Amino acid sequence: MPNAKVAMIGAGQLARMTHQAAIDLDIELMVLATSVNDSAVLGGASYVLGTPDSLSDIEAVAAGADVVTFDHELVSPSNLVVMQERRYNIQPHPSALYLAQDKLEARRSLSSKGFPCPAFSAVGSEDDVARFAEQHGWPVVLKARHGGYDGRGVRVVGGVDQLDGISWLLATGDTGVTGRAREPDKEPVGESLKEKVKEPAREPVKGRVKERAKEPAYIVEEHIDISVELSIIVARSPSGEVVVYPPVQTTQSKGICRYLVMPAPLPAQVSKQACDLAKSIVVEINATGIVAVEMFLASNGQLLVNELALRPHNSGHATIEASVTSQFQQHLRAVLDWPLGSADMRVRAAAMVNLIGSEDYIDILSGFRAALAVPGASIHLYGKDARPGRKLGHITTTADSVEDALQNALRAASCFGLRVSE
Amino acid sequence: MPNAKVAMIGAGQLARMTHQAAIDLDIELMVLATSVNDSAVLGGASYVLGTPDSLSDIEAVAAGADVVTFDHELVSPSNLVVMQERRYNIQPHPSALYLAQDKLEARRSLSSKGFPCPAFSAVGSEDDVARFAEQHGWPVVLKARHGGYDGRGVRVVGGVDQLDGISWLLATGDTGVTGRAREPDKEPVGESLKEKVKEPAREPVKGRVKERAKEPAYIVEEHIDISVELSIIVARSPSGEVVVYPPVQTTQSKGICRYLVMPAPLPAQVSKQACDLAKSIVVEINATGIVAVEMFLASNGQLLVNELALRPHNSGHATIEASVTSQFQQHLRAVLDWPLGSADMRVRAAAMVNLIGSEDYIDILSGFRAALAVPGASIHLYGKDARPGRKLGHITTTADSVEDALQNALRAASCFGLRVSE
Repeated sequence: MPNAKVAMIGAGQLARMTHQAAIDLDIELMVLATSVNDSAVLGGASYVLGTPDSLSDIEAVAAGADVVTFDHELVSPSNLVVMQERRYNIQPHPSALYLAQDKLEARRSLSSKGFPCPAFSAVGSEDDVARFAEQHGWPVVLKARHGGYDGRGVRVVGGVDQLDGISWLLATGDTGVTGRAREPDKEPVGESLKEKVKEPAREPVKGRVKERAKEPAYIVEEHIDISVELSIIVARSPSGEVVVYPPVQTTQSKGICRYLVMPAPLPAQVSKQACDLAKSIVVEINATGIVAVEMFLASNGQLLVNELALRPHNSGHATIEASVTSQFQQHLRAVLDWPLGSADMRVRAAAMVNLIGSEDYIDILSGFRAALAVPGASIHLYGKDARPGRKLGHITTTADSVEDALQNALRAASCFGLRVSE
Repeated sequence: MPNAKVAMIGAGQLARMTHQAAIDLDIELMVLATSVNDSAVLGGASYVLGTPDSLSDIEAVAAGADVVTFDHELVSPSNLVVMQERRYNIQPHPSALYLAQDKLEARRSLSSKGFPCPAFSAVGSEDDVARFAEQHGWPVVLKARHGGYDGRGVRVVGGVDQLDGISWLLATGDTGVTGRAREPDKEPVGESLKEKVKEPAREPVKGRVKERAKEPAYIVEEHIDISVELSIIVARSPSGEVVVYPPVQTTQSKGICRYLVMPAPLPAQVSKQACDLAKSIVVEINATGIVAVEMFLASNGQLLVNELALRPHNSGHATIEASVTSQFQQHLRAVLDWPLGSADMRVRAAAMVNLIGSEDYIDILSGFRAALAVPGASIHLYGKDARPGRKLGHITTTADSVEDALQNALRAASCFGLRVSE
């Protein structure tokens, strides 16, 4: 008999690494997978084949589990509401998860609670965008409310002359991404939103959730002059225990995190401010499990909340090697309401580089041996076929300084022939 | 398609942790398990049910694998010889593995090559033991040639008056332990050899191996006045690359490792001497994969080789948290002849405490939450039912000193109600 059974909706690399962590604590992880080739299934997690669109599939994976949690946010809110009504233990709570599903709701909720965010507005037309820009200046950032990730569903609009290409999106309400179960990595990055439009999920939802769905599918935000992009990993349990990991500095390109260093090289005061802010948000929205709070440190010195992810997150991968408790074990402990582990670092510094498929990079094995030979590189592969834009794995290094760690991680990643700075 | 397929004979906790490591490198680990409740099977490794006594079972797990390796040494040498004849890639090579299977052969081989060992002799009668003791003094250590582990098959004999109890063992050639596939942890520790006698394996073996089998089933060794017990983990690949981990100091009771610290607190010169000795042995016997070289630092300052294990080893568990490359990932890299990883420590110091079932300790969960609440304790459970003498898991801590690490690890282990110093 395992110590606990945890059901996870989704079976990607986050579920795969959660499974690795579950083994240490004798937890059985049961994932809802779309295919036997999903990363977590290949890693040996127990699984149910199905889709998060199907209530019966969700119930199948949840059967007998102590708690139901998530590897991604693309789960129908209505299904989660029904699951709650049926007394399943869902962590994080659907009302908190909803903030990671709906960027408009997240902005409204965080702003109304006084957390610093970029200026934003729901937009339904070109005119809405233009009006917002008159007030806040060009460029502006257009974001799909639902389903965006890794840069998809986000576009910087430089001026009035660039509005033409988006008018049809705003008019139809299509988000360019869907909230449905999907195999996200099979779609290439960098296509225009138009090319990727699918029928958005239109499921019957209840009360407040239903009202929101009628609103525009896009928001517009002021463009922030970013000094540093940060992510703060926080863990919180249902009984209220909270731990905060040191901030990491992420470096993004085309909306995808390319690499990060941990801890972020910030003045101690700014670092503390960022941690306090992240913790306050997590407590305020009553989130449980791991939450990644992405922030901008603007060039004017202000910290602004960007996005929330209510699950183990790419920006937390270095915790496997660098921290006393990895974000994956921590997530399990948190959703099970077990005592949380220390978020302290074991080492002075760490870096992580994502291995992302590109046009000229197909064969993961071609550079693998060379990367293994780079001393100190901890390689994590996800068992996926290589495709452009797909996260295929990551490399973590630890060192006495973030500079040394990053240099070494980039060196190992370069063996794969990836254009890390793409 | 995984990067490689590795077959492992045995499915205990070593295979379980090897499976966790295999996921990172996208290696499929296929284990030969005796039950679906074996640790590695519960952890999600692919498996074939069978026994290492059966050539067809070994072939079933080896089918399609790039290499066949081991979670324990209790495999019939004759089966391995046949596997080699059939062109399977066996790592470590059976002739090296044999030294971990047969203590007499190991002593002879290492002594003949000039490696420092305790004085020893094969014994077939009480008179043989008495004669040895006349030369080397009482007490002496009586060891079963085959199948001993965790203190089983080892007995200290204090004087002539204690020979009575062992005469029948020596006369019959029974070793008190068998070389057959077994579920070792289901047998309690500390029973007399007599109570545990089973029919030893008597399989047809070839040539030199067969000759050895006619010799006595016991050896006697001089009793060493031990200052420090050490283990040095070495990894070696078929193409000859070798890395050596820093020595660990183990603390044993009743022949079972209770806890260890890493690095062993030794003068640098002694530490280097131990590493050099371990490396020389591994190269000399042409071992591959992980080898644990257990040594005594005698109170006279001499280093003496105790035993060899040609597989990931209990004394290497702290490498998961403390080292750049865990012994489990290293073993996979080594047997696959991939570049080896760094054996450097990421941290200054680490400690590990085994969680061993005892008479008054049945329920693993009773102390689990309390142990989770000890900051900095990394708990690894093996998914086994608790029984006296059974290794159920281990706890690793890292710190700036071995004293701090050990204190914290013992504190966490004490939550389980285990008598660590038993």
